[in-house]
Amino acid sequence: MVSKSQTKLITSLQQKKYRAQNGLFVAEGPKVIAEFLNEGLKLQALFSTNTTEITAENHFLVTEAELKKISFLKSANTALAVFNIPKIQPVKDTGLILALDAVRDPGNLGTIIRLCDWFGIQQILCSEDTVDCYNPKVVQATMGSLARVAIHYVSLSEYFAETTLPIYGGFMEGKNIYSEKLPQSAIIVMGNEANGISDQILQKITHKVNIPRFGKIQKTESLNVATATAIFLSEFRRSIEM
Amino acid sequence: MVSKSQTKLITSLQQKKYRAQNGLFVAEGPKVIAEFLNEGLKLQALFSTNTTEITAENHFLVTEAELKKISFLKSANTALAVFNIPKIQPVKDTGLILALDAVRDPGNLGTIIRLCDWFGIQQILCSEDTVDCYNPKVVQATMGSLARVAIHYVSLSEYFAETTLPIYGGFMEGKNIYSEKLPQSAIIVMGNEANGISDQILQKITHKVNIPRFGKIQKTESLNVATATAIFLSEFRRSIEM
Repeated sequence: MVSKSQTKLITSLQQKKYRAQNGLFVAEGPKVIAEFLNEGLKLQALFSTNTTEITAENHFLVTEAELKKISFLKSANTALAVFNIPKIQPVKDTGLILALDAVRDPGNLGTIIRLCDWFGIQQILCSEDTVDCYNPKVVQATMGSLARVAIHYVSLSEYFAETTLPIYGGFMEGKNIYSEKLPQSAIIVMGNEANGISDQILQKITHKVNIPRFGKIQKTESLNVATATAIFLSEFRRSIEM
Repeated sequence: MVSKSQTKLITSLQQKKYRAQNGLFVAEGPKVIAEFLNEGLKLQALFSTNTTEITAENHFLVTEAELKKISFLKSANTALAVFNIPKIQPVKDTGLILALDAVRDPGNLGTIIRLCDWFGIQQILCSEDTVDCYNPKVVQATMGSLARVAIHYVSLSEYFAETTLPIYGGFMEGKNIYSEKLPQSAIIVMGNEANGISDQILQKITHKVNIPRFGKIQKTESLNVATATAIFLSEFRRSIEM
């Protein structure tokens, strides 16, 4: 069973404020939970409707109704786990680093974290107004990738003032990314879904690049931030491969 | 005001069956509607809470409450339009063609249609079990792109039996896409979100390619279908540019 204080705590973890206060986040479903355990994340408590799928200390067997009560999902899975938010190393100013300037949609952040994991980008810098990476929707979308990529919430403009790396950003008037020689160490900035890169950050961009547009599409249209990130990361990685 | 028969018709258009029967679909919001009008789609009726944003024949001024009743959105916009589903030309077996094998998520299809528009891919072949492109969520996600890309629902295996084009698909054991010489005319196949390309279609793939994986990511992980499409289309287009 789930105690009142457990229910209260778990429910509170839907909010960023309480995740930060407690240093905890929630993951749901045996597959996601198993991936986090596999990545060495510290489990606080596991609630599940059966004992076969995952075994762990602090394992509470619960009924479907009890699980439904604490679940954040529309249709609860068979297991819910509370994990400690892992401590991460300070930012290392080297290699490829992705910087997100006010990305707000949890689905986009989730997709971007998975892309970083695929392309071996180990550090993401998020502006403080970027959606929290332990937001339940991000957790469910990223699965194990969330534990393999270090995600730092920082003041981008302060970081950019200190960095020795070139800073790339996508702009319509930028140079064709297909013909640029791209470096192995750089910061790649992606902007907000509606407004792109903010004025303050825009001034810090040292290299403006552009994904060429083909066909009849209108000049005002832009690519979704997750698909644009996919193409940018692929271009930076292919330039190492070639 | 909105008549009873209008309400009944519009509500029915949430379902694919009634969209097909009536040859009609719904778009909501002045921006989306303006884009479709701009692309020359035929408007059946426009319902809006004001007269300033868009003007059209068959324009019905409605109250917010009336609009809410016919809207498919959680929070209704200021305008809802019923458009004729445009007739499209038969498939031309030339150029780059994207084929979708059972892509089910409306958000993914929407993103993919916008990507095709960006990269000037004018034809998409969808298997008959791919989500309908006039699904309200797809319409809202793609905006004008839906009118600029011809989307055909066909039997992929029948089409592939007849085509003279090479057929590319993504596979872990495929050749590194970064080092392949890619043609200007080809079919690129993307598979289902959970199961990838189906066995029946898999046999028809003439060129297996692979987006290299970097870093610590697990072998079982795959890219989201929309981000994988982004990288594939970008690679085919860059090979023309270079």
